[in-house]
Amino acid sequence: MSGIRPEITPAERAGFYKVLYHRRDTRREFLPDPVDEAVLRRLLDAAHHAPSVGFMQPWDFIIVRDRAIRRRIKEDFEAAHREAAEMFDEARREKYRAFKLEGILEAPLGLVVTCDRSRTGGPVIGRTSQPEMDLYSTVCAVQNLWLAARAENLGVGWVSILHPDRLKEVLGIPEGIVPIAYLCVGHVSGFHEKPELEKAGWLPRLPIDELIHYDRW
Amino acid sequence: MSGIRPEITPAERAGFYKVLYHRRDTRREFLPDPVDEAVLRRLLDAAHHAPSVGFMQPWDFIIVRDRAIRRRIKEDFEAAHREAAEMFDEARREKYRAFKLEGILEAPLGLVVTCDRSRTGGPVIGRTSQPEMDLYSTVCAVQNLWLAARAENLGVGWVSILHPDRLKEVLGIPEGIVPIAYLCVGHVSGFHEKPELEKAGWLPRLPIDELIHYDRW
Repeated sequence: MSGIRPEITPAERAGFYKVLYHRRDTRREFLPDPVDEAVLRRLLDAAHHAPSVGFMQPWDFIIVRDRAIRRRIKEDFEAAHREAAEMFDEARREKYRAFKLEGILEAPLGLVVTCDRSRTGGPVIGRTSQPEMDLYSTVCAVQNLWLAARAENLGVGWVSILHPDRLKEVLGIPEGIVPIAYLCVGHVSGFHEKPELEKAGWLPRLPIDELIHYDRW
Repeated sequence: MSGIRPEITPAERAGFYKVLYHRRDTRREFLPDPVDEAVLRRLLDAAHHAPSVGFMQPWDFIIVRDRAIRRRIKEDFEAAHREAAEMFDEARREKYRAFKLEGILEAPLGLVVTCDRSRTGGPVIGRTSQPEMDLYSTVCAVQNLWLAARAENLGVGWVSILHPDRLKEVLGIPEGIVPIAYLCVGHVSGFHEKPELEKAGWLPRLPIDELIHYDRW
């Protein structure tokens, strides 16, 4: 292993895994305290160093602090959430409704991560057989940012109960740019020990051995 | 910050960022040495602790060690790569062809990460307005695994120049299961300081300030 520069030491590896295993999707625990500019910058830079297909770097970041805009997004969430509740059968509907699923107004800022599908023009190395690779690169950026936030002791919640077209309208996102994630970001009163849906008995953690196949499915 | 348990310390944070910034897409540097079972297990467990929409955990992992199977996948890569080369104009085609874009046979193992789109049946919390969220959860698992590999001083290369339908056929992946990533995983002779396409002058690193918007696009 002597050729590996820089080598990750056991202590650094332990720090990395501690961050990874204690990342949570935060909804209820946001505090109103502002996020330090230098810290926010570190989160965005972590996202910007995600892998991207053909080095396309297709992402943009919209930092949404304006409360009136966030109030409109919250209204869109509420409409999408009402529609969603109707999809669950009666037995689960009330339980669904009782979950807190976003922190749009409680967190001090929203962060929208988008994907510019034609950022570099022409064919893109690695995207010729799988055109969705730019979307996936952008998701890698979201996950980098999420982990970096946990490393900074900040919470992140991904709000996916939103109609992307409405979000584009509210934020003036142009044609050809796909919103991938609306994230709530902020300080938190704490992190749950386990994912909330697991704790609530909605679904169990799957045993990993059931998910591993050898050589073929 | 006293309520945050566990709090990430500055030293742990530094370890995390070191891993994040030194992750690379490995193609040429794989060594044939086998990957330790316990280490491989840690990578899969890191992936399994990615965020997932509605706690769906839609991922499966196929560990491909069999050389005959990997040879078939390599042939599929070569066919897709030939098609891809034709898409570039003459000026860039030779440069494209000269890039080493996979390590399917050099790495000791391939790792396919898939998404089971109907894993939990019924409506999924958080997937009602954005049905692609399960695909994105699986990409988060890939990025967790990629970073964990770097923390273990292992290289990972994402091979996207493959036709997903061919990969499904070769690996016997059932209907309704979407292959998200074919990853080459193994020990490496080293990690590049910068992404190879950046170093080669194919595309520059974008200045991050051009990617940040405030309140609206």
